[in-house]
Amino acid sequence: MRALILTNQLAYAANYPAPQPAPGEALVNVTRAGICNTDLELTKGYMGFHGVLGHEFVGIIDSLEHYPGIADNFKAGDRVVAEINCVAADSPSRDYFTRAQDPERTTLGISCRDGVFSDMTRAPIANLHHVPNNISDDEAVFVEPLAAACQILEQVHVKTTDRVAILGDGKLGLLCAQVLASTSCDLVVMGKHRNKLDILTARGIATQLPSEWDGRRAYDIVVECTGASAGFDLARRMLRPRGTLVLKSTFEGLTTANLTALVVDEITLVGSRCGPFASALRLLSTRQVDVAPLIHARYPLDQGLAAFQHAQQHGVLKVLLDIA
Amino acid sequence: MRALILTNQLAYAANYPAPQPAPGEALVNVTRAGICNTDLELTKGYMGFHGVLGHEFVGIIDSLEHYPGIADNFKAGDRVVAEINCVAADSPSRDYFTRAQDPERTTLGISCRDGVFSDMTRAPIANLHHVPNNISDDEAVFVEPLAAACQILEQVHVKTTDRVAILGDGKLGLLCAQVLASTSCDLVVMGKHRNKLDILTARGIATQLPSEWDGRRAYDIVVECTGASAGFDLARRMLRPRGTLVLKSTFEGLTTANLTALVVDEITLVGSRCGPFASALRLLSTRQVDVAPLIHARYPLDQGLAAFQHAQQHGVLKVLLDIA
Repeated sequence: MRALILTNQLAYAANYPAPQPAPGEALVNVTRAGICNTDLELTKGYMGFHGVLGHEFVGIIDSLEHYPGIADNFKAGDRVVAEINCVAADSPSRDYFTRAQDPERTTLGISCRDGVFSDMTRAPIANLHHVPNNISDDEAVFVEPLAAACQILEQVHVKTTDRVAILGDGKLGLLCAQVLASTSCDLVVMGKHRNKLDILTARGIATQLPSEWDGRRAYDIVVECTGASAGFDLARRMLRPRGTLVLKSTFEGLTTANLTALVVDEITLVGSRCGPFASALRLLSTRQVDVAPLIHARYPLDQGLAAFQHAQQHGVLKVLLDIA
Repeated sequence: MRALILTNQLAYAANYPAPQPAPGEALVNVTRAGICNTDLELTKGYMGFHGVLGHEFVGIIDSLEHYPGIADNFKAGDRVVAEINCVAADSPSRDYFTRAQDPERTTLGISCRDGVFSDMTRAPIANLHHVPNNISDDEAVFVEPLAAACQILEQVHVKTTDRVAILGDGKLGLLCAQVLASTSCDLVVMGKHRNKLDILTARGIATQLPSEWDGRRAYDIVVECTGASAGFDLARRMLRPRGTLVLKSTFEGLTTANLTALVVDEITLVGSRCGPFASALRLLSTRQVDVAPLIHARYPLDQGLAAFQHAQQHGVLKVLLDIA
């Protein structure tokens, strides 16, 4: 099959061996996939991953290796998305939350398991979710990052009286913004790109350029989505004392941080990663979140290297790979 | 009066002007004071503080400038300790918790207010606490850092089923250990000094040298009390995924931190600073905490520079200043 393979660098392979599903896994024909900032970081050495890249996708089930004694609702031909943290079919980790931190987990296209930038992929049946008919393939590709945005609400109680700032107008920032707007909190999104912020303005979400910050340490909650080390210190300085800083960015490398300031201001930091697919599917199906304006380009799989070059350009949002 | 003054370096002054209490403040004759790790950091430039150093003390009220309309329970001759975060008598911040993060606050011997390494000091009457007769002057000096240890229990729900590790066997680590032991959690204190850990062993608290850690990421809560940047990464690596890292150390300088690991492991970080004096006084009065073994030396005020040199030596715990 065709695949984008990361070894020391990214390469396109026309004849990569097709995956062999294990008991309890499905073989899925990938329809469409999305390039994530994590994929770009992986190509820079993050996690030291080698294999088929990619973890955001939608596809059609080709075949299933049902696991004896475990009922499931899936059949060949079903259109599905898949959670990325995988455990064996007999594992006691039975939901996204426990799987996400299971020490035995493998992670689709990120750690110890081939991903989805290929004609076919395999995933545990337990990780699959049906995609409602009113969600397009393009939209379904966003379920995984949108679920990660939803995870913030699993971890932090966001109240209508909270002043909340999101730092970063990249893909994840724009998704987090739409999810947090659903709480009716007092929200502002701070980013450097007027054209990206306009996507949110069109949905009635307040936005600011960094230069427009009044310098007051007034936010109850700041969500750091800049995808880079530099956002941390600004996020800290925007928070009121005893505020909550939610970290969403993952990137290769270390950050020089003023930990003493966290102590003096009694800040709570919350690391936040993968989230609930069911919530993301509901937000898309009910049109509470609009992902269409985030799509900046699409490429066929055999032009995957060009797609990656495009995705790395400054100011570019989601680049899709059309696979089937 | 006599005082230890920090300008660009620490100096002893035989004739420093006595403090003038503002309305709502008490003038206190300092009896005994303690050198804290924060004092050592201040002499290295932390906070850029200039003035009379010191914030851990016990003393006798000399006189009071009662504030009209605000009742209090204090009179000249009372033996008292004082919370360190100070606001004006007419401030709406009426308890330790709000004062600790009041943007208008000054902090005794740390920020914008002379401290206690002097014959007399001044403090808001609202900050004073009577010292019960069964608490000695030596013990009362520990109320401020012991309150800071108690603050952990204000911020984090420590359960009897939690595996908790404290990193650091310095003064603050030994106090946090005794406070957390009161919760009946599954506690271990990790430090580099067998002689300091023995203070805890004698009280039935489990201890370990770093070399004795089994390398398992098994702790629900880790409290970082090493007083240095290096403890952060070890604390993070000892935590189970979704564990809580309590930061207690304040020090000059920045830390190189792996923030992405906090995201991937969904760690919660809690900065923790000043705490409730009433709780600390109760723990001392009921003998649930023993501070006597932490006292390593005492000096008269006019030998304060020697006291600081002693306090900076490796392995030294509390150095007291006998003032009256």
